[in-house]
Amino acid sequence: MEVTKTLAKFVIDHQYGDIPQEVRHEAARSFLNWMGCAVGACRHETVERMLGALADFSGPPQATVLGRGERVDAMLAALVNGTSSHVFDFDDTHLKTVIHPSGPVASAILALAEKKPVRGEDFLHAFILGVEVECRIGNSVYPEHYDRGWHITGTAGVFGAAAAVGRLLGLNEQQMIWALGIAATQSSGLREMFGTMVKPMHPGNAARNGMLAAHLAAKGFTSSNQGIEASRGFAHVLSTAFKPEEITGKLGETWEISLNTYKPFACGIVEHPAIDGCIQLRNEHGVKAEDIAGISLGVHPLVLELTGKKTPQTGLEGKFSVYHSAAVAVVHGAAGEAQYGDEVVRDPRVVGLRDKVTASVEKGVHEDQVRIAIRLKSGKMLEKFVEHAVGSLGKPMSNLDLEAKFRGQTEGILSKSETEKLIGVCWDIGRLDDAGEAARASVPADAARRKRA
Amino acid sequence: MEVTKTLAKFVIDHQYGDIPQEVRHEAARSFLNWMGCAVGACRHETVERMLGALADFSGPPQATVLGRGERVDAMLAALVNGTSSHVFDFDDTHLKTVIHPSGPVASAILALAEKKPVRGEDFLHAFILGVEVECRIGNSVYPEHYDRGWHITGTAGVFGAAAAVGRLLGLNEQQMIWALGIAATQSSGLREMFGTMVKPMHPGNAARNGMLAAHLAAKGFTSSNQGIEASRGFAHVLSTAFKPEEITGKLGETWEISLNTYKPFACGIVEHPAIDGCIQLRNEHGVKAEDIAGISLGVHPLVLELTGKKTPQTGLEGKFSVYHSAAVAVVHGAAGEAQYGDEVVRDPRVVGLRDKVTASVEKGVHEDQVRIAIRLKSGKMLEKFVEHAVGSLGKPMSNLDLEAKFRGQTEGILSKSETEKLIGVCWDIGRLDDAGEAARASVPADAARRKRA
Repeated sequence: MEVTKTLAKFVIDHQYGDIPQEVRHEAARSFLNWMGCAVGACRHETVERMLGALADFSGPPQATVLGRGERVDAMLAALVNGTSSHVFDFDDTHLKTVIHPSGPVASAILALAEKKPVRGEDFLHAFILGVEVECRIGNSVYPEHYDRGWHITGTAGVFGAAAAVGRLLGLNEQQMIWALGIAATQSSGLREMFGTMVKPMHPGNAARNGMLAAHLAAKGFTSSNQGIEASRGFAHVLSTAFKPEEITGKLGETWEISLNTYKPFACGIVEHPAIDGCIQLRNEHGVKAEDIAGISLGVHPLVLELTGKKTPQTGLEGKFSVYHSAAVAVVHGAAGEAQYGDEVVRDPRVVGLRDKVTASVEKGVHEDQVRIAIRLKSGKMLEKFVEHAVGSLGKPMSNLDLEAKFRGQTEGILSKSETEKLIGVCWDIGRLDDAGEAARASVPADAARRKRA
Repeated sequence: MEVTKTLAKFVIDHQYGDIPQEVRHEAARSFLNWMGCAVGACRHETVERMLGALADFSGPPQATVLGRGERVDAMLAALVNGTSSHVFDFDDTHLKTVIHPSGPVASAILALAEKKPVRGEDFLHAFILGVEVECRIGNSVYPEHYDRGWHITGTAGVFGAAAAVGRLLGLNEQQMIWALGIAATQSSGLREMFGTMVKPMHPGNAARNGMLAAHLAAKGFTSSNQGIEASRGFAHVLSTAFKPEEITGKLGETWEISLNTYKPFACGIVEHPAIDGCIQLRNEHGVKAEDIAGISLGVHPLVLELTGKKTPQTGLEGKFSVYHSAAVAVVHGAAGEAQYGDEVVRDPRVVGLRDKVTASVEKGVHEDQVRIAIRLKSGKMLEKFVEHAVGSLGKPMSNLDLEAKFRGQTEGILSKSETEKLIGVCWDIGRLDDAGEAARASVPADAARRKRA
């Protein structure tokens, strides 16, 4: 079975007209969500340090650092924007593989689109194809590959970036095969790095290295023709199991981007049902923290295993505390990045309520479910069973939810009108004459003024 | 056992005065051999295509493309020079691990030395330390890691580059630990790519990515503190066995660069005993091809397994033919890159003799041995048993051998006087005021003239 060749042929031959409207719409939703994440983290220390280290080496000002406005060479822009989009771990998730699909692909092709103008339709098409390639490769080796210790967003993402950039460069079949091979031999990223700055660099590296692969292949730089499936190729070397039919089956009939999900809350996905339910109870009953005697959560075992930290001391630790997360859900009615600041974790109102939260495993409660009981000081009980947490495939975030999340992310970076304009451009991405406009629309006027000064 | 920390501490604390003179001399030999390889391949299609693809993205003209003179940003120079040095597979070999140690390390620090001047002594010290780091990491996972399908020059090389660049940047202990971690998460390169252009890109990538790791760490970009030894770190994810004591044992007492070897012939190392013996018999007896009735070789089994191609049609195939190699050894008295051109493989004199060569496995003949019998048309027999092929640890290439190899490589690229000057600069590398001089001395005057025109 010629897996790499079959995939390459699919990517170069596919027609945009054959992509259903709802798939295109999901791609725009993914793009919007990705853009919000990248802009939202653009002033984070991770991005500052990366630019501080690498600006010296940058080539011509070809592409925009999203949300900031520095213009750097397109490879570096792909690296930096791919990194910022994953800094808060708030980007999209392909739940079948836990790949964060947009980062590697969108970061690469948006940077390219500023170097070499790309029509919105071609951009969205390449984006969908790139996501298809990385997620199918992910499907073919998941879970064994992930269990071995690989950060699959990095390892599979590089193929998606190579495919999408290669499509926009107009590679022929042999060149696309080479591009996938050059991607295969750069595939990397260890789960050991979770919790450090280099974790979000994985999608950035995937974007940059996939872009490199496609450009090399375009000039006739050769690689193996079986980079994915050969006995010493990607799948066998980086995984202990390989299902090639996950890559080649039903190509063009199903679309992995349709399975994409978006996090409503800036923390681990296992806490989302509890947050969702607490916000609902708060809003339905006008509950205030000071009226509460206790909150009990009946949860899936993973909740305690992954987010069982009872007394978090820092914002980052707060993300691993279902107690803190439930408390801010009631106190703030939200669980965005703002709710995981150090000062919020230490806020007496939040701490006071947090200490009244208990959680225990309840048999039969699934990963996207929770049973909540809030006991009020008045003696009244408020109860809720969350069937599917918001953001799960069973209850996806609405377009309005995504816009609200976006506004929360860009607050303090873009003005309100800039945010609304950028949201509009993202929804329109598939209809723009020049997709690069989306990158430029991410830059606030004050950054531009600062640069001119 | 804190492997990463121990290694980082060693790299930052080590004193040049504690490196024995013969180790420094071996490092200069390695550097000379590496430079000849890089210059020798600088006009190869692999390098042309890479520069064609990537020059658009280059940053400021910080460092030299060896042998050519284009000036590109230091990261790109590290990538290109690391690649060219491995194009002909004629670079050095650490036989214990089959790592080609100089490519990743020298390519990175020489590019750095042109951006930020480095004294020759510091340069040679960093070079020795970088080689130590990559070879020790290689020792700790060899052979299981290599057997799994990893091209160890790429996967281990990135650590060597990070360590050497980090040393020259003056990283502190925590930063060096991060640099090694950032290297770990970029470790990549598949053996599947052997025989394609992307294979020599592996040391280039290692050089560039290691350099990137060190620069990020210098700005406080964090990674795991146990990038090498953690259960989801480099060794456990990329290998099925790990011997940490190979990294931490006798640090500073033994030097891996002392085990470095240099190929006298531009082909697979298993053919070297046959070539060596044939050249010796030719020179000792004045043997001519037309006087020969037959040549029989008693060889180690790997010779037939890896280089058993009887009727090669191209230069590249000739490298995998012990028959062709023995023939050119007698006809040309050499087996450099020139003896593996397409026209040489088709030359009737070579083909005529090649068809008279037979090879069979002889029990008890080791990998660096061969038994040769040349039967002359006169009936006379010329026999030789090669105990240790030239270039093996048992019979290393002399300094004069290395210089002769260098001259063969730079022929057609540098003038004779430019070659002699560059040889001198390489021998002096540890005593230069500015190590970057070595890069500039690799550029022929006609390239400089062409650039000025």
